[in-house]
Amino acid sequence: MDQTQIEREIKSLVNVPHQFSFENGVTITKVEHDLCEGELAVGPDSINPGGYVHGGALVTLADTVAGCCACSRGGDCVTANESFEFLRTAGGPKIFCRAVPKKMGRTLRVIQVELTDSAGRTVAAGTFTFFMTEV
Amino acid sequence: MDQTQIEREIKSLVNVPHQFSFENGVTITKVEHDLCEGELAVGPDSINPGGYVHGGALVTLADTVAGCCACSRGGDCVTANESFEFLRTAGGPKIFCRAVPKKMGRTLRVIQVELTDSAGRTVAAGTFTFFMTEV
Amino acid sequence: MDQTQIEREIKSLVNVPHQFSFENGVTITKVEHDLCEGELAVGPDSINPGGYVHGGALVTLADTVAGCCACSRGGDCVTANESFEFLRTAGGPKIFCRAVPKKMGRTLRVIQVELTDSAGRTVAAGTFTFFMTEV
Amino acid sequence: MDQTQIEREIKSLVNVPHQFSFENGVTITKVEHDLCEGELAVGPDSINPGGYVHGGALVTLADTVAGCCACSRGGDCVTANESFEFLRTAGGPKIFCRAVPKKMGRTLRVIQVELTDSAGRTVAAGTFTFFMTEV
Repeated sequence: MDQTQIEREIKSLVNVPHQFSFENGVTITKVEHDLCEGELAVGPDSINPGGYVHGGALVTLADTVAGCCACSRGGDCVTANESFEFLRTAGGPKIFCRAVPKKMGRTLRVIQVELTDSAGRTVAAGTFTFFMTEV
Repeated sequence: MDQTQIEREIKSLVNVPHQFSFENGVTITKVEHDLCEGELAVGPDSINPGGYVHGGALVTLADTVAGCCACSRGGDCVTANESFEFLRTAGGPKIFCRAVPKKMGRTLRVIQVELTDSAGRTVAAGTFTFFMTEV
Repeated sequence: MDQTQIEREIKSLVNVPHQFSFENGVTITKVEHDLCEGELAVGPDSINPGGYVHGGALVTLADTVAGCCACSRGGDCVTANESFEFLRTAGGPKIFCRAVPKKMGRTLRVIQVELTDSAGRTVAAGTFTFFMTEV
Repeated sequence: MDQTQIEREIKSLVNVPHQFSFENGVTITKVEHDLCEGELAVGPDSINPGGYVHGGALVTLADTVAGCCACSRGGDCVTANESFEFLRTAGGPKIFCRAVPKKMGRTLRVIQVELTDSAGRTVAAGTFTFFMTEV
């Protein structure tokens, strides 16, 4: 598969109804070799009791984008573990996420994400480790 | 506030429409001194491309329950960071989460969570650190 | 190999000169099926600028004990990643570490550790993920 | 205190006998505003059973350099928690560490580190959260 086909295939799996991420406003916007980007459209149901974007919504965006980055050369994966830092309270209208690899091993792939708000401020960062179920 | 009032107040903030957690099937079921429990009702929109419960849904459950545990003596908090391990693919009908403290400091509280499925299998575990904005 | 042989072999690899852990006062004291214990003898060179046990010494103890737990059924491993919480400043004369599995997969093993001081207080906790290079 | 004084003071606290880091070959080489660098001189006692640099030695380097970065504007701190990824087996003669902030809050500071070997390969990466005990 060439890179365009990979991007098309990933988007056809993730940017679709019933996906937890998609149903919550997350869209994958770019899949390139070792790079993935996506965004969260913040809505009235994205919030936590403080009125900010819920941490779970940020991690949903991050996990989805990071997973697509791990599979950006093809293959299939599951998340093994992740660590995540909330750096600033986040609001809408959008949160953007960019994922790049720290390691692209045959079995384990380590992906780093950074999340920014519409004003360009970094609101969160994290590291996700994926186990490749198919390479 | 006594413990019953704390539980009532927390539930009235979290188990309500527009909350990201609640809109995705998460309910806080118990708040006691240094203990919180909650559950995720897995639905057709809870899934990832593999057909299992999306990692973001599990972290949403965990973050919500852990935060309520951090505030189980009263007060208010934000999540500073978390680490999370996906131990087994998770399915419905429900995922249960139990949170207990590792540390209940004045400023920082460290909460450990364990997530189990309806068959009692541990599907995920994590550690959340909260910054108390009000004690 | 039976369990006694596994324990003897692990100790002969870890409790020996030139090992970073051993040279810094770390000893593995027990290896059973899915359980490992070890201890750090705090010395004058174990400290950080605050005069407490250096975080690196605690993680050295934890990583060593957790790795022996991952291999407590035999096999060989490398640490893939870890997360670690410092819960209380730690002093001597000893720090004890107990490691038990959260998951013992064929390829990935997730081990949880708890570190206590000589007074029985929990000073740190962490989760280590190992990649089995040999099962 | 100006930046030169801060650097001198930090080095006088860390690059000295009895410090766990220093006794294990770790030296802080540079402290600037929001940047710190250090190195580990790998020796015969730096190893793990596989013959590579022990994970505890890498985390000792990382924690020390990250802590100096958190205090690179002055002040004092303790490590609250950290997450760390081992990306490649590491050998000598030296391991280099560079730390930069993700967040420099009044109370919490989040520092990201990258560790490279003498050939310039990234061998590990991590994120450390510090609690400022004095600002």
